[in-house]
Amino acid sequence: MNMDKLFDAVAAKGHVCVGLDTAAEYVPPAELAKAASPADAVFAFNKAVVDATLDVCACFKVQIAYYEELGIAGLQAYAKTLRYLREKGALAIADIKRGDIADTASRYAKAHLDGEFEADFVTLAPYMGMDSVEPWLSYVESKGKGAFVLMRTSNKGMRDFEYRELLGGGRVYDAVGDKLDELAAKYQGKKGYGAVGAVIGCTEKEEAAAIRAKRSSLFFLIPGYGAQGGAADDAALLLRDGNGGVVNASRSILKAWSAIAPAEKATYKDVAEGARKAAIEMRDAIRAAVKVGSPTAVNK
Amino acid sequence: MNMDKLFDAVAAKGHVCVGLDTAAEYVPPAELAKAASPADAVFAFNKAVVDATLDVCACFKVQIAYYEELGIAGLQAYAKTLRYLREKGALAIADIKRGDIADTASRYAKAHLDGEFEADFVTLAPYMGMDSVEPWLSYVESKGKGAFVLMRTSNKGMRDFEYRELLGGGRVYDAVGDKLDELAAKYQGKKGYGAVGAVIGCTEKEEAAAIRAKRSSLFFLIPGYGAQGGAADDAALLLRDGNGGVVNASRSILKAWSAIAPAEKATYKDVAEGARKAAIEMRDAIRAAVKVGSPTAVNK
Repeated sequence: MNMDKLFDAVAAKGHVCVGLDTAAEYVPPAELAKAASPADAVFAFNKAVVDATLDVCACFKVQIAYYEELGIAGLQAYAKTLRYLREKGALAIADIKRGDIADTASRYAKAHLDGEFEADFVTLAPYMGMDSVEPWLSYVESKGKGAFVLMRTSNKGMRDFEYRELLGGGRVYDAVGDKLDELAAKYQGKKGYGAVGAVIGCTEKEEAAAIRAKRSSLFFLIPGYGAQGGAADDAALLLRDGNGGVVNASRSILKAWSAIAPAEKATYKDVAEGARKAAIEMRDAIRAAVKVGSPTAVNK
Repeated sequence: MNMDKLFDAVAAKGHVCVGLDTAAEYVPPAELAKAASPADAVFAFNKAVVDATLDVCACFKVQIAYYEELGIAGLQAYAKTLRYLREKGALAIADIKRGDIADTASRYAKAHLDGEFEADFVTLAPYMGMDSVEPWLSYVESKGKGAFVLMRTSNKGMRDFEYRELLGGGRVYDAVGDKLDELAAKYQGKKGYGAVGAVIGCTEKEEAAAIRAKRSSLFFLIPGYGAQGGAADDAALLLRDGNGGVVNASRSILKAWSAIAPAEKATYKDVAEGARKAAIEMRDAIRAAVKVGSPTAVNK
């Protein structure tokens, strides 16, 4: 099961998930000017970041929106990035947040877990219900793939619907969590986590420890770190025994080069150096916070 | 405002939205064998359907999953299909069900309302809240675009979360509807409908009339007709004054050729003939049902 692989990657290399949400404007201007196209520059940029962080992060998350923005050429860079990650033996999460009726979902699943855009994990949106998640599970069974379903996200708007209280008790995101627990029980890996995990933002501290305790078999993909306001202490509350989740950061890693070199002189070498430094700092900050802050560690 | 255009299209040509959810296996085998690639066949198939139904349907909905399944070549066919619809003056709904944090949503919005994949409308998923809808609104303002947000869908899984009752009253989909009403008031067109409408399936009769009455300023995109079990009478319950919504059908139109010609002999001519016949029958059935079945007509 792939969630075991992610568990092992966290144990070996820390909790950082490097978010390759790469906009063309993140590329140093001199490199962008030299590239044949913005999409080519984005791929070269990704390559520099991947090479520089491979041994200090658990996995990579590729946000497809940034590639769709560049049209067909962008999606070619997206496919190339996923291929490069595979070549390097890195685990890739396709951040696509798909959610659609079963016939449609099976097309998406084929595209993103078995086709030209193959990744190891995908993110899914739960609004339409569990029959929109089900078609993805055949790839959990046949190819050891996995998924993360949106549960409680890191944006302010999560209060609009995710956070609403239900008549029978709990919030909407709890109802999602209950369904994910069922899936986790069905597809449980050797490390105690199901092949389908949850997206839980680290921007809200309040229920973090309670969510972690209640969802002990859900591996978490944790957005909201850095640019979105979440800190290592907040992320640590969502980790269990120092594992059980990866913490995503995108801009704080991708744009770290701007603290190293002036924009007009910066090269991919600076991109690599900045990304590695930022990823290591983040890895160490979370490791330190996990030691003192995780619910389990506190109880020891 | 684009919703006015859709209103006018319904008034002139009926309620049918032709769903171009075109799988390569829908293409007659002889035509598929002749094509340079499955993606080329899909585009040629779409062209035949569009030409044959342009004057008897209100709009077209292109489901991106079916194109992603074919990888980059499929997405080229997707872009070509949208371009062809634009050339023909047809209104196009990109069925992409996106929903993501604001920075990401603005990338998606640029891709699907202004870029290589430009459509007139998109479908959006509300789980993450209204800040995931907001970035799309700049194209409502600047380019007369529109959107349909998932509210109560046509699949069984809609009972998992959409249908859950809230502590303060109403269901989750009502909470979504309330937010959409606010947007509709802000971006109201001349025909009384907001630029952001709702996806409401016609597979559940019970609350259909109540939903229509309560959401008088929301234009509906209505899936679930035909292959998914919805009938003209059910769809009519979701229409107001004989307008206020478009009813999508995909497979029942795209595969109508199989009733006209044996698979081994069928050509695009049969595809066109079948699609036109199916669309006209559906248009007439809904028009007839609207006359006797719409809430407003009943009250007259």
